[in-house]
Amino acid sequence: MAKPLNIGLIGVGFMGRTHSNACNRLNNFFDSPYQPVLKVVCGLEADNPAAFAKQWGYEEHETDWRKVIERDDIDMVDICVPNNMHAEIAIAAAKAGKAILCEKPLALDSAQAEEMVAAVEQAGVPNLVSYNYRRVPAVTLAKQLIDEGRLGKVFHYRSLFLQDWTISAQVPQGGKNTWRLDVKTAGSGVTGDLLAHCIDTALWLNGSITDVSAMTETFIKQRKHAETGEMTDVGIDDACAFLCRFGNGSLGVFESTRYARGHKALYTLEVNGEHASLRWDLHDLHRLEYFDHRDDSTVRGWRSVHVTDHDMPYMKHWWVPGLQIGYEHTFVHQLADFLEAMDRGETCSPSFREALETQKICDAILSSGKSGQWQGTS
Amino acid sequence: MAKPLNIGLIGVGFMGRTHSNACNRLNNFFDSPYQPVLKVVCGLEADNPAAFAKQWGYEEHETDWRKVIERDDIDMVDICVPNNMHAEIAIAAAKAGKAILCEKPLALDSAQAEEMVAAVEQAGVPNLVSYNYRRVPAVTLAKQLIDEGRLGKVFHYRSLFLQDWTISAQVPQGGKNTWRLDVKTAGSGVTGDLLAHCIDTALWLNGSITDVSAMTETFIKQRKHAETGEMTDVGIDDACAFLCRFGNGSLGVFESTRYARGHKALYTLEVNGEHASLRWDLHDLHRLEYFDHRDDSTVRGWRSVHVTDHDMPYMKHWWVPGLQIGYEHTFVHQLADFLEAMDRGETCSPSFREALETQKICDAILSSGKSGQWQGTS
Amino acid sequence: MAKPLNIGLIGVGFMGRTHSNACNRLNNFFDSPYQPVLKVVCGLEADNPAAFAKQWGYEEHETDWRKVIERDDIDMVDICVPNNMHAEIAIAAAKAGKAILCEKPLALDSAQAEEMVAAVEQAGVPNLVSYNYRRVPAVTLAKQLIDEGRLGKVFHYRSLFLQDWTISAQVPQGGKNTWRLDVKTAGSGVTGDLLAHCIDTALWLNGSITDVSAMTETFIKQRKHAETGEMTDVGIDDACAFLCRFGNGSLGVFESTRYARGHKALYTLEVNGEHASLRWDLHDLHRLEYFDHRDDSTVRGWRSVHVTDHDMPYMKHWWVPGLQIGYEHTFVHQLADFLEAMDRGETCSPSFREALETQKICDAILSSGKSGQWQGTS
Amino acid sequence: MAKPLNIGLIGVGFMGRTHSNACNRLNNFFDSPYQPVLKVVCGLEADNPAAFAKQWGYEEHETDWRKVIERDDIDMVDICVPNNMHAEIAIAAAKAGKAILCEKPLALDSAQAEEMVAAVEQAGVPNLVSYNYRRVPAVTLAKQLIDEGRLGKVFHYRSLFLQDWTISAQVPQGGKNTWRLDVKTAGSGVTGDLLAHCIDTALWLNGSITDVSAMTETFIKQRKHAETGEMTDVGIDDACAFLCRFGNGSLGVFESTRYARGHKALYTLEVNGEHASLRWDLHDLHRLEYFDHRDDSTVRGWRSVHVTDHDMPYMKHWWVPGLQIGYEHTFVHQLADFLEAMDRGETCSPSFREALETQKICDAILSSGKSGQWQGTS
Repeated sequence: MAKPLNIGLIGVGFMGRTHSNACNRLNNFFDSPYQPVLKVVCGLEADNPAAFAKQWGYEEHETDWRKVIERDDIDMVDICVPNNMHAEIAIAAAKAGKAILCEKPLALDSAQAEEMVAAVEQAGVPNLVSYNYRRVPAVTLAKQLIDEGRLGKVFHYRSLFLQDWTISAQVPQGGKNTWRLDVKTAGSGVTGDLLAHCIDTALWLNGSITDVSAMTETFIKQRKHAETGEMTDVGIDDACAFLCRFGNGSLGVFESTRYARGHKALYTLEVNGEHASLRWDLHDLHRLEYFDHRDDSTVRGWRSVHVTDHDMPYMKHWWVPGLQIGYEHTFVHQLADFLEAMDRGETCSPSFREALETQKICDAILSSGKSGQWQGTS
Repeated sequence: MAKPLNIGLIGVGFMGRTHSNACNRLNNFFDSPYQPVLKVVCGLEADNPAAFAKQWGYEEHETDWRKVIERDDIDMVDICVPNNMHAEIAIAAAKAGKAILCEKPLALDSAQAEEMVAAVEQAGVPNLVSYNYRRVPAVTLAKQLIDEGRLGKVFHYRSLFLQDWTISAQVPQGGKNTWRLDVKTAGSGVTGDLLAHCIDTALWLNGSITDVSAMTETFIKQRKHAETGEMTDVGIDDACAFLCRFGNGSLGVFESTRYARGHKALYTLEVNGEHASLRWDLHDLHRLEYFDHRDDSTVRGWRSVHVTDHDMPYMKHWWVPGLQIGYEHTFVHQLADFLEAMDRGETCSPSFREALETQKICDAILSSGKSGQWQGTS
Repeated sequence: MAKPLNIGLIGVGFMGRTHSNACNRLNNFFDSPYQPVLKVVCGLEADNPAAFAKQWGYEEHETDWRKVIERDDIDMVDICVPNNMHAEIAIAAAKAGKAILCEKPLALDSAQAEEMVAAVEQAGVPNLVSYNYRRVPAVTLAKQLIDEGRLGKVFHYRSLFLQDWTISAQVPQGGKNTWRLDVKTAGSGVTGDLLAHCIDTALWLNGSITDVSAMTETFIKQRKHAETGEMTDVGIDDACAFLCRFGNGSLGVFESTRYARGHKALYTLEVNGEHASLRWDLHDLHRLEYFDHRDDSTVRGWRSVHVTDHDMPYMKHWWVPGLQIGYEHTFVHQLADFLEAMDRGETCSPSFREALETQKICDAILSSGKSGQWQGTS
Repeated sequence: MAKPLNIGLIGVGFMGRTHSNACNRLNNFFDSPYQPVLKVVCGLEADNPAAFAKQWGYEEHETDWRKVIERDDIDMVDICVPNNMHAEIAIAAAKAGKAILCEKPLALDSAQAEEMVAAVEQAGVPNLVSYNYRRVPAVTLAKQLIDEGRLGKVFHYRSLFLQDWTISAQVPQGGKNTWRLDVKTAGSGVTGDLLAHCIDTALWLNGSITDVSAMTETFIKQRKHAETGEMTDVGIDDACAFLCRFGNGSLGVFESTRYARGHKALYTLEVNGEHASLRWDLHDLHRLEYFDHRDDSTVRGWRSVHVTDHDMPYMKHWWVPGLQIGYEHTFVHQLADFLEAMDRGETCSPSFREALETQKICDAILSSGKSGQWQGTS
């Protein structure tokens, strides 16, 4: 019998929608120990939290996040606001003893992230950072294949995250849909927004990153600020690429941009091992490509694995083999795993502490981008 | 303000799940005139409708479908049982004045289907048949491009639906998950199950089919019956291919089988027109391939359109460009369209009458498969 | 030490070029028992055989094919003229004791083809028909995999040959480059030109075809004749599709057209067996796709085999792994195999007798297209 | 009337074969002002130049390259020996007034390359470096599209060259087929062998590279030397990745390795511009992928352009639309272009001077790989 788990969601944007959807779908598909109850949603008055509450089925709505945290009947705080507010809310929620699900990146920088880790660990509250792409079934399958030792010694890891939505100089910075271009709100540009995903997955699949050398660029130097209406210097990185070395001796190459015409959300990764290689691509997220050198040489080739069979990660919960799921399902998987770990009193990955490692690498990247020097990550 | 619409679902199998999910998701994503209310679900005792009701949020559960139809508080009956029960239930529901959403194929044969059409038309109740693949955004986009005249005169239509789940002689016929192999329950094999989808889409995209010539085969002649445990002759078609002529002068080639190793649900279609061509594939359902001869000759090629942008069919309701949806969403689109048409007092397509045309073509195919003759469809 | 083999080529069109190229390339790449010597080429005066001879290195040129055959110093006659001239030339060459390489289709119809078979068998001369696609390395690899038993029992064979070059009504019939549209010269349209390739490969890979049911169409009923300048009825089939049954119990679906916008020469084939399936496509001719159900279920997928490794058919003769060859190389392979068989006194496949089987199937297809009846092939 | 051009080839390895093939095919396909005459080939006695001469049709063979250069009847010297011998031979050939076609990379380092440039420019002899991938039709088409301004301002260039042939520690260094692993003979590893190709194309398509930051790795530290039989330190770079900035403000990311399991010769490139993007891949070299943002938004997608039509670069010389050519044809194109420029008294690109720029970038990369610093390229 699933126990009710009262949710307080803070943030009514794109991520607020994906998290609410996960709560609503969970028990239709997963035999979870908990039944999320959408108690309250909190958003800026301008963003109409009342309409959001109605759309998604929250019992109440609110404009002051502190009131959400003060409520005794809230079990879990779900943080879906812009990056600059994560720390304050998460620390307060931890002090109030709430379980916390926090959108990525964890914080504006690793100093902030350190405080957040301290807060949740001191409070002993369940905590998870929403690096949802780990839980694309094909990516989880990649992890499984690596853990089974199929690849052998890894030589190379490469990953891209390419978008094209800010090519026009008319796109403003700041404001509701474009806060990701405002460095004060976002902390950084593609590094925290996109590369952070690539790094989280890489750490999971391939272990620690020890050193980085980065190149950053801001192609459009000034944009109108949505709040002030004034042309203002752009402080974020529009594009960032970095080289790195992993603890296991392999080499990494990463690149991210919002100026790659033709790509909306092309997150790709490839891992080359001694015996086998694999690659994946968010634009066809239900496929994993796999090459195994141990196959007979006349029939050796990249296999396009349609990750829809029931013995593949998460898939038995959904439909029948051959029928694909999509982006939103990663958030359902994330919630299912978090609640199951919570019920068993275990840590769910990536915890705040794990996400801190990603944050440190992001800091090192941004620093290396400025200095032009290789930089250690610890 | 969405009006409540009380649903009575009959059938707790795979399709019962997809339809229930559509009801639960609708108002989170669509501004529908109706709010589905999951009043009651009906299933065989052996299939545990109580558990299904709990899983999906039905208020009540039931084992006798007649009681569902007798209830005054039910507005819509959703028929998700095996094919041999569609007619009796639908006709009763029509007489009781219920709106009806019926799984495909409409009936065991066109004689039955005629009666069902007569019943809903006489009763004047809203009716829709669940040929859900029309409402894959890429397929709906194909329809839009054809309606815009981009293809010009059409010369060819070809379509496959390939599966591989019955290759083993150990798969039984009859019973809960394998009733599709029992001719008494299913009416036919791949013709009604798979080709019916291909035909429905073809009629929608390319107009009427006038003549067919078919070849059918049953590779495994006897299978154990799940209910009796006895080896019994297999009455369904394991595979069926047919040639046809469309009313617009184009030629059609269709094929379906459950013996195509390597394919789980490879429904494909291609249309070749004078100026442009398009093709689509269920295994990558979020893409439409399009070729336009009017492009400059040095950059002419098949375009792989990632159907995720907001100006593409249905996509503004979901996430952001680049992020794909999946199979289940087609049922949400279907429900949204049905309820909107219902609210406006309009017919939603494919109605029972339109599905009757598909049924007639299926009958002609099966008849031609037996006679070896070309057969008219009317 | 390679023995000289004196070649007399008849025909200076597209096929004359591919065959000449094969002769010129052979000894650079293959350790052939013979060294082709380009003795003489024969073409219509209007087609300038002198220029062709100079371009390709023929010692002499000629306008009367009979003179080529009369020469004692000619060892092999290579027939690259339009279809309506194959029989007369081949029969004369056989009587003169020449080895014969003849372009496909063997003849205008199977009656003619029977005579040709009789002539070469009576004369006991080496003979080969240029169904060159068998000798694409990926297709030869397919044959090898099937012969190894990897597929198990075959259920399905499907094949397309799609082009788009005659969509415009301005394309004439008859004449130098468009004789394939003139039924008197070509014998048939896509059936003899394109489907004949599909059938030849199918017979090789999957064995005999016993019965066919076809549909043919001529979309453009009249075209200007290039020789007379007059609008004349079009006698060829613009498009043809057929269903068939193979001797091994599998089902076949074939289609060909010159009205499939977006495809220049899309010859595809797919074979579905109990354990494995394979498919191939002329537009990426250096790849074979292979699916093996015996792979571990979590890494099962279609493999894209890049057929460039040295242990794959023919590839050790060319470059290094990873570097692809193209269309023209199939003619070099064909010549290499023919000459090697000739040297050993063996038959090379497809011989005139084997090509007669393809011709009979083409006849049955055309007949079925007219009668609307299933037709046996023998 | 084509003028004879007497060729002296030095080197009988893989590249000697590709160049000889180009000479033999040229006049069959191109209306060249010259007719190459294979006068003499020179190779080490151990490599059997006599057999090579016979195989490819050279009139004579030789073991001392100086004798080739001393001959008055040699017009062009074709240098296909390992990298460490390029400079001495090329300088001697220039002094002797010969036209020179030299394999890439031009030299062991840019100091050597400077001397070679001085020599050919002082002598005023035609000179070309064999960066053959520029002359893949799809790559030449990419250049044409960029020159037409279709991309607009370029933001990103990325390129990989991935192989897997040295993963085994049993592969030796030095000797006939593995000299590319011996730093004394090769100068560097993947940088000079593979990245040099990527850089040459990048300079051609996207202009100058101003600064680089590189990471290099030697995974296997010692390998047996094929000549001495002793385990010796490996001096080459097994893998190299670098970030760079182009003169036009765009960012570059390049990577190369011989440890990427599953890739034989995966040379890829992608260019992202303001309005359009393009990408290409050597494993399917006959295709160019192109995305144009100016397409109608509902049919916008990556186009897979099958580069076989007659109005695409070089293709009118080969077969008919739809039929692909392969790797070896790039060398025919290169020779055709070189001889045509020679006839007109013009420079053919990439000249020794242009290849020097690539060499300087390679030097900067290797230097940056050691220093860990960004490095200018001039």
